[in-house]
Amino acid sequence: MNIILFEKGELTGGSLILRDHRARHIVKVLKSSSGDVLRVGEIDGDTGRGVVVSIKKKYPFIVELSVTLTPNSNPPVTIDLLLALPRPIMLKRILSQVTTLGVGQIYLINAKRVEKSFWDAGVVDEAGYRPHLIQGLEQAVDTRLPEISIYRRFKPFVEDVLPGLLHQYSSFVVAHPDSTNTLSRCLTGRGRVLYGIGPEGGWVHFEVKKFREAGMNCFSTGPRILKVDTAVVAIHGRIRQLLEGC
Amino acid sequence: MNIILFEKGELTGGSLILRDHRARHIVKVLKSSSGDVLRVGEIDGDTGRGVVVSIKKKYPFIVELSVTLTPNSNPPVTIDLLLALPRPIMLKRILSQVTTLGVGQIYLINAKRVEKSFWDAGVVDEAGYRPHLIQGLEQAVDTRLPEISIYRRFKPFVEDVLPGLLHQYSSFVVAHPDSTNTLSRCLTGRGRVLYGIGPEGGWVHFEVKKFREAGMNCFSTGPRILKVDTAVVAIHGRIRQLLEGC
Repeated sequence: MNIILFEKGELTGGSLILRDHRARHIVKVLKSSSGDVLRVGEIDGDTGRGVVVSIKKKYPFIVELSVTLTPNSNPPVTIDLLLALPRPIMLKRILSQVTTLGVGQIYLINAKRVEKSFWDAGVVDEAGYRPHLIQGLEQAVDTRLPEISIYRRFKPFVEDVLPGLLHQYSSFVVAHPDSTNTLSRCLTGRGRVLYGIGPEGGWVHFEVKKFREAGMNCFSTGPRILKVDTAVVAIHGRIRQLLEGC
Repeated sequence: MNIILFEKGELTGGSLILRDHRARHIVKVLKSSSGDVLRVGEIDGDTGRGVVVSIKKKYPFIVELSVTLTPNSNPPVTIDLLLALPRPIMLKRILSQVTTLGVGQIYLINAKRVEKSFWDAGVVDEAGYRPHLIQGLEQAVDTRLPEISIYRRFKPFVEDVLPGLLHQYSSFVVAHPDSTNTLSRCLTGRGRVLYGIGPEGGWVHFEVKKFREAGMNCFSTGPRILKVDTAVVAIHGRIRQLLEGC
């Protein structure tokens, strides 16, 4: 936890009173005392400093911070992720890792090789996935929560929704091992990028065809077969490198 | 498991008899039958095809394969990793992920912010880490096991060992958030790269100074603070992107 995040409603006249895992973290991990200054941030808002006004170091822990906010200075995130729903334990890790790396929008979609039972997992609901996004922000020192959109049917998404989304992007690419194209050849300019990662076992032929019909470009990163979580992070790194360019 | 790997000594006159988790995988996951052809490979050797000669589908599972080998056609790996020893559970995941991505040599070293207890973990011994490397190869469809070297003292490594290693590399870089340099400015040519990732909390000033004295270049990927496993994978992706160049 490299920043203490709070919800807008928690701040009252510049004062923030914590009684949960954040108070525990301040007492047990940061070992803070009165007068110490901590990095704080409002979820989807500003970042700033919180001065420890009072601290109860025995359980139940209570920490009061006096908070001053200034605009979040992190550069805006220009990468979005289109992800075939992975198994729940992997989804949790991916959400937190990709939020740390920086992602604006995550589209969770169905695909032929997505196991039906994955859709019943608690992490697919906002109450289930939000903590993993917040963990990612706490690691990254950012406040901007990615938005998640969920599409439980592939065909309506790719036919009716996807084409209307693509105008926001300067590049939209889908990882597909059979492609002979490289990522750098698919990326045009340095604008916003949408990248798609399939399920374990990959997209089926029909899905690749539908993505191509919608205007997306397929690329491969070589013959090594990656797990979904490895692919999401490694390809995010590749895209960042291409966008930064120097 | 995208390839069935075996040790050199397991093959007798072109015949491979499996009775362990690999036999189970062939029966339960691949649901193979006699005559089916599977991708196989000898650890640190060739890849090829294994025809199922006989298969016992009830526990205890036994599968006999008739194996034909040809040289491993994967392009050689030209990235090595210098890693401050992370906590055991994270090390296991990193070893398997980075082996999947492709790494030749892994130097596991000590650093000020490495917890002493991490060195007592079973995964630091060859019997402990080897299965995670093999898992990574089974995922990637490769046979070349990364080599692991372990240095339990930072100063003797960085002063006496590291300078003698660097002649193999065209670039040797260390991730360090305080650096104002970028990765692409540190990478010269398309030859072999050594990249260094510090412990949670980062390298201390003394360590950065010693790396610089040894000739290594520091770089930063921006203000977001990454966990060690995320950094290892994302920066591997960046380096691959820069090496491929197109």
